[in-house]
Amino acid sequence: MTTEILTTLPDVQSSPDTRCIAIDRVGVRGITIPITVQSINGPQPSVATVAMYVSLPATQKGTHMSRFVTLLSENLEPLSASMMKSLITQMLALLDAQDGYIEISCPFFVTKSSPVSGLKSVMNYEIRYEAECKNGVTSVKQEISAPVTSLCPCSKKISQYGAHNQRSKIRISCELSAEMSLEEQIRIAETSASCELWSRLKRSDEKYVTEYAYEHAKFVEDLVRDMASQLNADDRVLAYWIDAENFESIHNHSAYAFIERRK
Amino acid sequence: MTTEILTTLPDVQSSPDTRCIAIDRVGVRGITIPITVQSINGPQPSVATVAMYVSLPATQKGTHMSRFVTLLSENLEPLSASMMKSLITQMLALLDAQDGYIEISCPFFVTKSSPVSGLKSVMNYEIRYEAECKNGVTSVKQEISAPVTSLCPCSKKISQYGAHNQRSKIRISCELSAEMSLEEQIRIAETSASCELWSRLKRSDEKYVTEYAYEHAKFVEDLVRDMASQLNADDRVLAYWIDAENFESIHNHSAYAFIERRK
Amino acid sequence: MTTEILTTLPDVQSSPDTRCIAIDRVGVRGITIPITVQSINGPQPSVATVAMYVSLPATQKGTHMSRFVTLLSENLEPLSASMMKSLITQMLALLDAQDGYIEISCPFFVTKSSPVSGLKSVMNYEIRYEAECKNGVTSVKQEISAPVTSLCPCSKKISQYGAHNQRSKIRISCELSAEMSLEEQIRIAETSASCELWSRLKRSDEKYVTEYAYEHAKFVEDLVRDMASQLNADDRVLAYWIDAENFESIHNHSAYAFIERRK
Amino acid sequence: MTTEILTTLPDVQSSPDTRCIAIDRVGVRGITIPITVQSINGPQPSVATVAMYVSLPATQKGTHMSRFVTLLSENLEPLSASMMKSLITQMLALLDAQDGYIEISCPFFVTKSSPVSGLKSVMNYEIRYEAECKNGVTSVKQEISAPVTSLCPCSKKISQYGAHNQRSKIRISCELSAEMSLEEQIRIAETSASCELWSRLKRSDEKYVTEYAYEHAKFVEDLVRDMASQLNADDRVLAYWIDAENFESIHNHSAYAFIERRK
Repeated sequence: MTTEILTTLPDVQSSPDTRCIAIDRVGVRGITIPITVQSINGPQPSVATVAMYVSLPATQKGTHMSRFVTLLSENLEPLSASMMKSLITQMLALLDAQDGYIEISCPFFVTKSSPVSGLKSVMNYEIRYEAECKNGVTSVKQEISAPVTSLCPCSKKISQYGAHNQRSKIRISCELSAEMSLEEQIRIAETSASCELWSRLKRSDEKYVTEYAYEHAKFVEDLVRDMASQLNADDRVLAYWIDAENFESIHNHSAYAFIERRK
Repeated sequence: MTTEILTTLPDVQSSPDTRCIAIDRVGVRGITIPITVQSINGPQPSVATVAMYVSLPATQKGTHMSRFVTLLSENLEPLSASMMKSLITQMLALLDAQDGYIEISCPFFVTKSSPVSGLKSVMNYEIRYEAECKNGVTSVKQEISAPVTSLCPCSKKISQYGAHNQRSKIRISCELSAEMSLEEQIRIAETSASCELWSRLKRSDEKYVTEYAYEHAKFVEDLVRDMASQLNADDRVLAYWIDAENFESIHNHSAYAFIERRK
Repeated sequence: MTTEILTTLPDVQSSPDTRCIAIDRVGVRGITIPITVQSINGPQPSVATVAMYVSLPATQKGTHMSRFVTLLSENLEPLSASMMKSLITQMLALLDAQDGYIEISCPFFVTKSSPVSGLKSVMNYEIRYEAECKNGVTSVKQEISAPVTSLCPCSKKISQYGAHNQRSKIRISCELSAEMSLEEQIRIAETSASCELWSRLKRSDEKYVTEYAYEHAKFVEDLVRDMASQLNADDRVLAYWIDAENFESIHNHSAYAFIERRK
Repeated sequence: MTTEILTTLPDVQSSPDTRCIAIDRVGVRGITIPITVQSINGPQPSVATVAMYVSLPATQKGTHMSRFVTLLSENLEPLSASMMKSLITQMLALLDAQDGYIEISCPFFVTKSSPVSGLKSVMNYEIRYEAECKNGVTSVKQEISAPVTSLCPCSKKISQYGAHNQRSKIRISCELSAEMSLEEQIRIAETSASCELWSRLKRSDEKYVTEYAYEHAKFVEDLVRDMASQLNADDRVLAYWIDAENFESIHNHSAYAFIERRK
């Protein structure tokens, strides 16, 4: 009976459209699924948010929404730049589309040792992959967001003691010609900050991070420039989009800086 | 014709219910409306988010959702503790209900002068009113949230120079026996912090706030205790719920403290 | 050298406090960690957000924040009601505290078969555990949130064709005297709705869910009452807090209902 | 004394930078301020979120963050496309910058009469202005987001009765050669939907919107195409970016479509 219904149920999406307007992107978003991510220690479990779109020609009334979910369900490969390239190729074939876009973001974890006591703890980051196919060209962006400390050089310079500092979020998105691990990309961000973060610190560690940040005072401008210097020197990086947001401890708004560059 | 339809359209909500289960709260939430708030300088325009609920007896199938919106539309009084008391009384009458609950929150603004240069700027806070009527007793809570700076006493003590500091959010909700202005309530929060915030600071001000915070190092525990001391000493305060959240600059999580007290 | 520093670094948190104000809850919040959750098919990987607080006596200046993270890092047991009970006991011992509170929330996944075509897909839910110890009594709440369809009986009754429907979010938090699986708790929510949701539907399934929802029109009041009926009849349930929020398709705000009951 | 301090305090931001890296955007974000918006009935009070950035040459160490807030504080003109053009010109002059970007978003309100009973109520929308100056060319985008109802044509066609429908959010951002009121832009969005929304509906109105949506079934693709048709025919529109997101009532994810066009 199910088959009978299926053959007789009209397929409205496949009917022609007379408005002559092509659609750049149509698909699904806000999908939450369990996945694994490719870390240097192998696949790491996480929970991802996904958006998947294809272009739709002017002549076609609708896309087939359930196929996106099908493709996603059947994927078993850990999330990585190469997996994204494979996924978008499969999507275009399955949806019979010219152009397409996929975005997958999720938390990512790295076990770190605290700087003095060597205490181990797990730090959380956000990662995000974007794959786009436009006019036959496919590109993939690999992005990480790292929470760090920033300490203001102006505040340090003009004050007799202390210096305002705060949590900042710095982000590196890049197109790569060769593999860069997520851990390596996170290190570029962390080493550009006044100080990196750990989840667990003993007092000896707290002394270290306080003094280290004070010795490495940086404006929001310095955070993005120091990242840019590292990315400029890395031959694997074809293009990058980087930013830093300081959740200012002396204001109720953020300081922000952004650099984009295609080499 | 409209009238005719109205008289003949069945009123499903008013029909009896046979499951014998009373509902504690039913109504609307997530309503966004323009309002005014009672400030010390008169009514101040803002944009509020509103939730309004009533109790529903076991015998009644549904409440009348549109009446909440009607009541809200017709209210012209600036938001204040006394307006909330009046609004919940009207709501219970209009909905023919025993118990009820109203929550209205919105941004609130105070013009402040920076500490050294005297530069004027507008600071933004969040306020929230809750009115509840239960078993014939009506109570109103007046709440403010203030962003401030906190500076860690431990970090200061153990480090040769510097001390980690960060933006914190501190909140005071209280039941009052006599009027307390929102501005006064905000001052209790701000004076309990390592330093208060301004939207605009010249370098002379930045020097001041940096050194002031360093001289007033406080744990998250100190923030709530210093607020509690002030509220304990204020006879207008019948009960309070206060908390502080430090968005730690050396961690990717918050430190948090909470005190509640009914005198 | 590290040890030397550690022994000489002053421990500010352990110093006495002279304000004579006890703190109800102090600790950490906003911690993001990888965990596993106890599902009927064994431990399921997920990513959790955690808050952990203890009470602090009036005489003590500060709690030991890093110990919360230590405890969390060392826990290997899958998230469940019994794990929460064990975790809060360990926390109170480690922090030497009288009262405490732990909250852990995360996405949870169930593989479901679509109603007609039998297509398998993974549905996502939100779960949350709360453990509280107060005055020597420990209680644990197990909570699930399920997205469902609700269809308005009034709209159906008064209209010649169609009926407005929308996505709703329904939530069941309960204290249990015996184990109830998260899957079972989710079923109570889903079977109380106009229709449950699936991630992937063929056209035959879409026809089914459309007609099923139309045949099971329910107000937001009905959603909570139908859940309450099931929970009232279940002897394992000692107390419950349930609500439903309809993201109305004909308004830009929600309809909402809430029932709480201790048997 | 203040003046003395000011003249002697070092100006770190104005010192030269040796890394030779220009910054595309640097400034402030997350500023919350009270503003007025230009509506067809004159200035309307609202609360805005603001971001303001300028480009920074490779030779300059830092921008002057407080000047952004100064500029914003001194602006008294109601928010509109022409105000944005004036504001970005002032910002570039004040910050001595080549390129710049400003984004201001806020809630916006329109009083509407319900379709049958004529009941008045206030509907809330989101608006957003973007001004960008790049390589000497300044452009302004005017954007509105409107919540609407969408009803699925496939579900309607294949089902014996009913059709799944849901709240959708549709967005129109456009560059204009001549003024278009926010209200007019909102009407383009609302008239492209299965049905528009009102805050307050009597039963006669609810019957109307239920049947109207059923008679105007539209896919997410239809929502963007019907907006595109209207914008294509409007000579004031130089370019547009439009999208629609359906918060599917039969799924826990959204359907989404996007069209961009420069004429």
